[in-house]
Amino acid sequence: MKRAFIIVAGGKGERMGGALPKQFLPLHGKPLLMHTLAKCHSWDSEADLLVVIPQAHCDYWRMLCREIGCSIPHTVVYGGANRFESVRNGLQATDCDGLIAVHDGVRPFVSLDVITACFEAAVAFGAAIPVMPLTETVRLLTDDGGSRTFDRSCLRSVQTPQVFAASLLRQAYLLPYCADFTDDASVVESIGATIGLVRGNPENIKITTPTDLLFARAFLSQ
Amino acid sequence: MKRAFIIVAGGKGERMGGALPKQFLPLHGKPLLMHTLAKCHSWDSEADLLVVIPQAHCDYWRMLCREIGCSIPHTVVYGGANRFESVRNGLQATDCDGLIAVHDGVRPFVSLDVITACFEAAVAFGAAIPVMPLTETVRLLTDDGGSRTFDRSCLRSVQTPQVFAASLLRQAYLLPYCADFTDDASVVESIGATIGLVRGNPENIKITTPTDLLFARAFLSQ
Repeated sequence: MKRAFIIVAGGKGERMGGALPKQFLPLHGKPLLMHTLAKCHSWDSEADLLVVIPQAHCDYWRMLCREIGCSIPHTVVYGGANRFESVRNGLQATDCDGLIAVHDGVRPFVSLDVITACFEAAVAFGAAIPVMPLTETVRLLTDDGGSRTFDRSCLRSVQTPQVFAASLLRQAYLLPYCADFTDDASVVESIGATIGLVRGNPENIKITTPTDLLFARAFLSQ
Repeated sequence: MKRAFIIVAGGKGERMGGALPKQFLPLHGKPLLMHTLAKCHSWDSEADLLVVIPQAHCDYWRMLCREIGCSIPHTVVYGGANRFESVRNGLQATDCDGLIAVHDGVRPFVSLDVITACFEAAVAFGAAIPVMPLTETVRLLTDDGGSRTFDRSCLRSVQTPQVFAASLLRQAYLLPYCADFTDDASVVESIGATIGLVRGNPENIKITTPTDLLFARAFLSQ
């Protein structure tokens, strides 16, 4: 079955506190995004790989690929005004009619096993995402300006790749943009689909802060 | 005003996957717990420091302090069957009548500024804890076995130190144990107190997995 990865790297890097968008931060001689691209390629070298980045950064990305010698075949797609638009642009750039994974460009450490589990569950459910239990106590902010302890056992923290039957994902992305769409599962469930949950891996964090980057360097140095 | 830190290190290390309880894991030549103790001492060298560890580990801890040359004055308190009992034992071992902080023994990276903010807010509110916004999308498991996206903007992830007026904390810890008490704020709010929230620091993680330990080593190497 044909597979595709839409690798979303639309970030402009505000949270990292530097001028360089976080997907381009160097990690062991390669930008973060290139590690993520390599991970997807290593899982399925036949998959259609779409890298979605802001139009303004496309030339820079191509230069990085050329200079570093990244020979992984992939399509560069212009990002949109938000994540939803970026994924939609990615969808329009592939004719994949099998399973499509949407993956954050700044999550290079997803394990191959988790990718496999997501694709397998997507065959069964039409939609599958990796999740983790929350390790800290959680509080809920209440309407009166206060807060109270919230039972974290019924919460899950969501990772990517989020994998969907192509037809389902395309149908969901016909919707108009809504600010409640914080990930692809939220888009797909808004048309009534059920989302299968599989266990993610703890290292599969989104590298968005200097603290995350510190972890990323340590993890790669192992 | 007299201050005390109850440093809770009751863990038997199951989550780390090794035989050594996590509070004793070596980090730059010192066990994790000793870093945490040193952090509290560096914030207020006059504070009453209580280290709560399982009775079976007390001799081992004293040996570590002797061999490594830890000269920070502190009281060793036997842990209980759960965190609630451990904190209660810590409370009984101090006559502090000012503000009491309860802090996880495996959180050595709380910033001095966050400790200050918690103590200041506890003066105002009687109870204050450090919290962080959640960075990942969150799903709520529903009663029908499914799940749905949950608005993470109204959730906060809870850290320590959790700081309380001594009288309030002592009153709360007269309660019988309840499995819903996942932290000290949940105990104190069960007697009707309001919990003040201050912003934590992102590095202030609980070191409980090999991945966390990897981060901890990287953070200390900076």
